Amino acid sequence: MTTHSTALLTDMYELTMLDSAIHSGTAFRESVFEVFGRRLGGGRRYGVVAGTARVLDAVENFRFDPEEIEYLREQGFLSQETLDFLANYRFSGSIYGYAEGECYFPNSPILTVKGTFAEACILETVLLSILNYDSAVATAASRMTTAAHDRPCLDMGARRAHEVAAVAAARAAIIGGFTGTSNLEAARQYGIKPIGTAAHSFTLLHDSEEEAFAAQIATMGTSTTLLVDTYNVTAGVEKAVKAARDAGGELGAVRLDSGDLVAQAFTVRTQLDNLGATSTKITVTSDLDEYAIAALGAAPVDSYGVGTKLVTGSGHPTAGLVYKLVARENTDGTWKEVAKKSDHKASVGGLKVAGRRHDETGRAVEEVVVSARDYQQGLDYLASQHARPLQVPLIENGVINEKYREADSLALAAERHRNSRAALPYAAWRLSEGEPGIPTRLEDIFDGDEE
Amino acid sequence: MTTHSTALLTDMYELTMLDSAIHSGTAFRESVFEVFGRRLGGGRRYGVVAGTARVLDAVENFRFDPEEIEYLREQGFLSQETLDFLANYRFSGSIYGYAEGECYFPNSPILTVKGTFAEACILETVLLSILNYDSAVATAASRMTTAAHDRPCLDMGARRAHEVAAVAAARAAIIGGFTGTSNLEAARQYGIKPIGTAAHSFTLLHDSEEEAFAAQIATMGTSTTLLVDTYNVTAGVEKAVKAARDAGGELGAVRLDSGDLVAQAFTVRTQLDNLGATSTKITVTSDLDEYAIAALGAAPVDSYGVGTKLVTGSGHPTAGLVYKLVARENTDGTWKEVAKKSDHKASVGGLKVAGRRHDETGRAVEEVVVSARDYQQGLDYLASQHARPLQVPLIENGVINEKYREADSLALAAERHRNSRAALPYAAWRLSEGEPGIPTRLEDIFDGDEE
Repeated sequence: MTTHSTALLTDMYELTMLDSAIHSGTAFRESVFEVFGRRLGGGRRYGVVAGTARVLDAVENFRFDPEEIEYLREQGFLSQETLDFLANYRFSGSIYGYAEGECYFPNSPILTVKGTFAEACILETVLLSILNYDSAVATAASRMTTAAHDRPCLDMGARRAHEVAAVAAARAAIIGGFTGTSNLEAARQYGIKPIGTAAHSFTLLHDSEEEAFAAQIATMGTSTTLLVDTYNVTAGVEKAVKAARDAGGELGAVRLDSGDLVAQAFTVRTQLDNLGATSTKITVTSDLDEYAIAALGAAPVDSYGVGTKLVTGSGHPTAGLVYKLVARENTDGTWKEVAKKSDHKASVGGLKVAGRRHDETGRAVEEVVVSARDYQQGLDYLASQHARPLQVPLIENGVINEKYREADSLALAAERHRNSRAALPYAAWRLSEGEPGIPTRLEDIFDGDEE
Repeated sequence: MTTHSTALLTDMYELTMLDSAIHSGTAFRESVFEVFGRRLGGGRRYGVVAGTARVLDAVENFRFDPEEIEYLREQGFLSQETLDFLANYRFSGSIYGYAEGECYFPNSPILTVKGTFAEACILETVLLSILNYDSAVATAASRMTTAAHDRPCLDMGARRAHEVAAVAAARAAIIGGFTGTSNLEAARQYGIKPIGTAAHSFTLLHDSEEEAFAAQIATMGTSTTLLVDTYNVTAGVEKAVKAARDAGGELGAVRLDSGDLVAQAFTVRTQLDNLGATSTKITVTSDLDEYAIAALGAAPVDSYGVGTKLVTGSGHPTAGLVYKLVARENTDGTWKEVAKKSDHKASVGGLKVAGRRHDETGRAVEEVVVSARDYQQGLDYLASQHARPLQVPLIENGVINEKYREADSLALAAERHRNSRAALPYAAWRLSEGEPGIPTRLEDIFDGDEE
């Protein structure tokens, strides 16, 4: 669905601002917008950047085709000059951002959009929609895979999210360390391994549990996963093992989807072992979140299927990222740092360059965010601090850096996240509420005009 | 985006079940699936059915085109017979459901899908995705508009939801009583009134707040809404009123987007009145939910812009609806009620017909849900109970009832919701946790085979 125009996935006020700015002669001032979060939801220790590759698609497809222009013209709220600007719109600025999968913290400049006010302003809504949702899911996923240690986590949440959001959720889950998805569109679109075998309805369709199990094994083989809790779990497990053996093999796995999963996992493992089915695995799938997964850590469970809590961000369905103008040209062409300065929600102005300092063992110790005149000045400062630069050039002068959305970018993002998370101090991996995993030091080396 | 195939917005297990059922000869047993919720999230008093018109589009577009078939063939997990079935798939069964906007309660049979197991089973994921998300948002919206009494509520949540989910959220919000949306795609697609004027960045772009206000008024007129909290609110209000008067009119409204909204609303109202700007309205937009809106009830506020909490269901981002096989044919063609019967999550079997009993004043007193052999038997029972039937024929023998998705169905759904909610007892309108607004009586008059 990436070939559709994304231009109207936009709040009306972006276009009325554009119209007024064109009228007042300020629309083409060079500007810097920044995506950041003021805090991490729920006292989390870190967030996970996700959606970056989708952002690149959205910017590329942000074009006002004749049908979009016609709709806007009919609404009558834009001048002809503004409609002409939109009809010819192509983003020609630059976007720097944290590479997908990187951990972030409060005030991390996750995405920096540099261009004229006109071209940068109107991207706000769609950029935030993507980053807020995908990062919320990836962050929840990362906490779940931390809790699961090396047991596989699988996305089964499609039915608990908007049907198209679910596709993005499956992708974000992979970045957070999940290894498969039930969602076929996500599997197709992003090359994720599709997973799933059967629901209770399949058992109920047949005249007996035995017939259902035999039917499933006949088509899917003995390595399949049988759902054993439609009637009685103990009887179900016995029938499941027998069904596989009747077909000449040992059963791949049983799935538990209800009840006290910890107690059941122990009971079922003992039963399987007593039946000699020591290779048969146990997968659990009932209302899991990171805490339930952690609670199952000592139970003999082999994999987790996660639904609702994954695709809804486990209590934090949006990452709370905002898009703020932080710098713009003055009339004389000099740069001015700007920020909202009322008593509430004050922001830090200026183009920001971000790095992470690691100690000699590689452990992350500090996020360094510096307001600078330009990237080079910021990078020089980071170098002086021995901080690893975090931002990469996603789009330069309107040209997308294909590296960040090539076919294997998802696998790379997942690997990047594993490494980024592994480098955080131990306290950052805790599920409990607390401070950000590492502190952020904000510096301002910009020597120009400030507001 | 409704012309795309929706067929792969589906969990893999729907298709593996189909494959196994085709193999075992059970795939074409006539079946009844039901969408319902076991409970209302967060102790809410009622839920709001939304997404029905989108369900009709999704079923119509649920077709496996050559590219979908090719993807599935490459995965190698389906037999040729199953691929052939999918290539020719068109839903030919019937779907009954609560009309969009209707209030629902635990165990209300919101949607009933009747057809062969094969054709009904595989719709599960996409039907649930739509109904779970849209109903979650409509339910939150309804609670907000209840709290707002007759003050307008406006959707500004696009940036806090997946970019395509946001379009559905705007639609669901209208069903819950909202009167406008910031989202241009939703406005275009559903004929909703688009709203919005300017953000803080517009003020920061200009050399002064005065210039920004003058520029906005120059293009949008004095009836516009000026955002007055970029710097100092009191100074902002004074400048805003002056800017409108300099342009020869009285300002339409001021918007407050931060801080203590109750206190500020009183201060700003007094200031506006002292300035003689008695017709200038106040709109507030900062992190609102139904409780914040209720808390603003006594404050001099004229409208509410709601973002995050609307599009994320105000703490309950999914409605928790499930899709269960409740009845199917036996080998001899007789019907059998079925339900999962393990110790956990037991379900009630059987095709169900639902009605609502009202007292002589029109007040709803009870939901009557009856398991029956067929609709007619259920309707006869409802008539004997003087209960208003709640289900409408959305699709009959594969033919969509256009009435439920025609252009004005959204306005009708909103009106239906207003009436349905107004008929509930007073206690149902409370925001606090509690029992469902009316009790549900489950009856079983089916005299056939049960499991």
